Amino acid sequence: MNYRMIIYIMGQILRIVGICMLLPILVGAFYGEEHVIESFAIPAAVTILISIVFTIKKPKNRSVFSLEGFVSVAASWIAMSAIGAMPFVISGEIPHFVDALFETVSGFTTTGSTILGDVEKMSRSCMFWRAFTHWLGGMGVLMFVLAVMSSNDVRTMHMMRAECPGPNVGRLVSKSSFSARILYGIYIVLTLSEIVILALLKMPLYDAVIHAFSSAGTGGFSLWNDSIGHYNSPAIEMVVAVFIIMFGINFNLYYFIIIRRFSLAFKNEELRTYLGIIAVASVAVALCVIRQYETVGEAFRHAFFMVASTITSTGFATADTGEWSNFAQTLLLLLMFIGSCAGSTGGGLKVARILIIIKTGIRELKYIVSPRAVAAVKIDGKPVERDVIRGASNYFILFMIIFALSVLCISHNDFTLEENISAVTTCINNIGFGVGRFSPSGNFGGLDVFSKIVLCFDMLIGRLEIYPLIMLFAARKN
Amino acid sequence: MNYRMIIYIMGQILRIVGICMLLPILVGAFYGEEHVIESFAIPAAVTILISIVFTIKKPKNRSVFSLEGFVSVAASWIAMSAIGAMPFVISGEIPHFVDALFETVSGFTTTGSTILGDVEKMSRSCMFWRAFTHWLGGMGVLMFVLAVMSSNDVRTMHMMRAECPGPNVGRLVSKSSFSARILYGIYIVLTLSEIVILALLKMPLYDAVIHAFSSAGTGGFSLWNDSIGHYNSPAIEMVVAVFIIMFGINFNLYYFIIIRRFSLAFKNEELRTYLGIIAVASVAVALCVIRQYETVGEAFRHAFFMVASTITSTGFATADTGEWSNFAQTLLLLLMFIGSCAGSTGGGLKVARILIIIKTGIRELKYIVSPRAVAAVKIDGKPVERDVIRGASNYFILFMIIFALSVLCISHNDFTLEENISAVTTCINNIGFGVGRFSPSGNFGGLDVFSKIVLCFDMLIGRLEIYPLIMLFAARKN
Repeated sequence: MNYRMIIYIMGQILRIVGICMLLPILVGAFYGEEHVIESFAIPAAVTILISIVFTIKKPKNRSVFSLEGFVSVAASWIAMSAIGAMPFVISGEIPHFVDALFETVSGFTTTGSTILGDVEKMSRSCMFWRAFTHWLGGMGVLMFVLAVMSSNDVRTMHMMRAECPGPNVGRLVSKSSFSARILYGIYIVLTLSEIVILALLKMPLYDAVIHAFSSAGTGGFSLWNDSIGHYNSPAIEMVVAVFIIMFGINFNLYYFIIIRRFSLAFKNEELRTYLGIIAVASVAVALCVIRQYETVGEAFRHAFFMVASTITSTGFATADTGEWSNFAQTLLLLLMFIGSCAGSTGGGLKVARILIIIKTGIRELKYIVSPRAVAAVKIDGKPVERDVIRGASNYFILFMIIFALSVLCISHNDFTLEENISAVTTCINNIGFGVGRFSPSGNFGGLDVFSKIVLCFDMLIGRLEIYPLIMLFAARKN
Repeated sequence: MNYRMIIYIMGQILRIVGICMLLPILVGAFYGEEHVIESFAIPAAVTILISIVFTIKKPKNRSVFSLEGFVSVAASWIAMSAIGAMPFVISGEIPHFVDALFETVSGFTTTGSTILGDVEKMSRSCMFWRAFTHWLGGMGVLMFVLAVMSSNDVRTMHMMRAECPGPNVGRLVSKSSFSARILYGIYIVLTLSEIVILALLKMPLYDAVIHAFSSAGTGGFSLWNDSIGHYNSPAIEMVVAVFIIMFGINFNLYYFIIIRRFSLAFKNEELRTYLGIIAVASVAVALCVIRQYETVGEAFRHAFFMVASTITSTGFATADTGEWSNFAQTLLLLLMFIGSCAGSTGGGLKVARILIIIKTGIRELKYIVSPRAVAAVKIDGKPVERDVIRGASNYFILFMIIFALSVLCISHNDFTLEENISAVTTCINNIGFGVGRFSPSGNFGGLDVFSKIVLCFDMLIGRLEIYPLIMLFAARKN
């Protein structure tokens, strides 16, 4: 393993994180908050110093294979989570390190689960940093590094594969710093659009920035305890819902629209399935909860928002789903596993993977009847490569094994089985809320330290799609 | 599709069921029960009549391919469940047909879930029939037909595959009426041994027969509300535990012992894993519940029994696991998915399949690091065929999809999410008990008709391993 190169890549990533940590200082200064210098400047300085040490010498051997790519991404994500937690600890707003770590991992992985009972107490600088971790983690920090690096600096493909979600990443746009710049460009434009539209709807600018960061990463942190529901504005809810659905779409499709290949974008099977699931699930949930609201419109409004928030893995709330019917809650829990499109900022198993494994399952049925007359699995009318099918199936298997073991690991506490299942579901799929004590009105503060660490691991497993993290811990021998 | 041959096979199977229904009449007559003639003789006569009509003419075209094999097995299991439910309805002991159907499906599929609040009220003839469905369903009714048929009568391989559990059925013993006779021979000898040993331990003969039938099929019906716990006898519990563990072992291994190829039997990787899991899980559960019992020995005794009862998919109880810790209950729930060995009478995903998918998952990790240097997945030191790996992975995927949809289907009721999850888990894996209202002290009577039918479907899906049932409903076109 090329350790020097791993250190070098980590240094590059940490430098970005260190620089980003300077932003909350400006926010704090603007609002006249006192503790902002020691909370952010100290960890930022330390981080930048470390990054300089790590990158002071360019390694002679710049070859980066799969293993190095995975390990450097996993190590960087853990390091930046630990560093990102520091401002919360130093400011005393989240005094315990493990709690702060949980909050930061939840931020970078765009989960949006919080350990805080009352988020409204948080200072504006810390709140900004908390939401900014969503924005940074959504598209990926490594991707950021690639976007600002010259394209020949490192072999990027293996690392992109490690940080970017979905079974067929980058098949469309070539994997280079060029594509990273395009993707970040789209990401920035969409985020700015949301800020402007929310501000036009009379949301205060600070609130608009926070919620746009949260939407962009499909994260879910809000500055209110009752999340987006706080504004009680159908217009704001609709704008946020549409934006999170857009951030849950494969960014390659936006690239297709930019280069005017519209049919490639709009005929995309994953996109159509994704939008179809949102439509069907919204109607189903609305019919379930129709009696709990005064008007039919209100039921549809909350159903659509919560379905969008769940399948995109955002985790904003306008309603306390804990009060909804069993069927509605179970349906939302299943949507969490489906997740959004590959190559988006959303979590879950990804619609593309679900499509592949369901089609593979159906093909298996045909295969059993007549092994010779079996057609290939097709997506977008084209046969899916055998390796992609094998990869999707095995990803699902590993995911379910880790899921089951995680539920067992946290089952020693006094939460109910359904609460434990929903906690792992929401963390491993990067959603944000579950059922019972983890429903939108609850929080993750009641868990013990061990369970919090297990869930941190699950959030990283979900965001980085299993392999990087396992490589980090299992591949020392090589 | 060769419909004539399907009808012919169904006729053969129904004849066996019809004849078996005459047995409870003898039991009822012996104990002087009154309603026994109309309860059993009428449905038995009708069944035998139907079977004669179905088999009166041997089809000219005797070819049976996969599809016919699957469809005839699925149709037969549904028909025999509907017929087997009749005595309960006619006698008035389970007045509603859907309840009686649930009880009978639970019997034939060796699940052992009951809709009865008080099983002790049941007459001895009905109780005998209820336990006998376990015995018949355990080894398979079709297998019985094959055992009594001449070996050239039908092409048997495809049907054996449809009724016999596990990823690599019959790889060892050739698939013929010869092997069916050997397997049934072993089954009968083991069942008789258990009856004798239980009787020697002073269990009344009737009780011994009922519990031996239940053990043999790894079913779980008992004649007491508190199951095996009723006797409060460590000796009886130990005998039952050892027998259900034996019935959960691949019967091919007993054949190896008979032909004195001991190393093939004892070095079997699936067997070692199965026994290893039982040992580790028993210790883990015992440590969890140690404070709830007066002595350490008692904790180990109950832990071992409940682990054996769960992993073999039997569902007998000596303790109300609903009162155990979260961790212990979660562990038992996971054991339900693992299940017993392939080619046994037990349920679950089967240890062999779990071994294959875990090894395939680990290979995937290696594959991602270096695609060229990947070794084959091995079981018993031999490479597993690609088709078997693909089959095991796809089986797992289809199983989990059906599992998720089933939980959604029954979630409209007012049970909790964890109760719904445990109901589907226990039914699809053919165990018998779950958590909450479905824990050993509870029952399935509180569910609505639709949920009961969904769970019947799940029990059949689990027992017949998915494909036959789906073929029956999906393959009409061919």
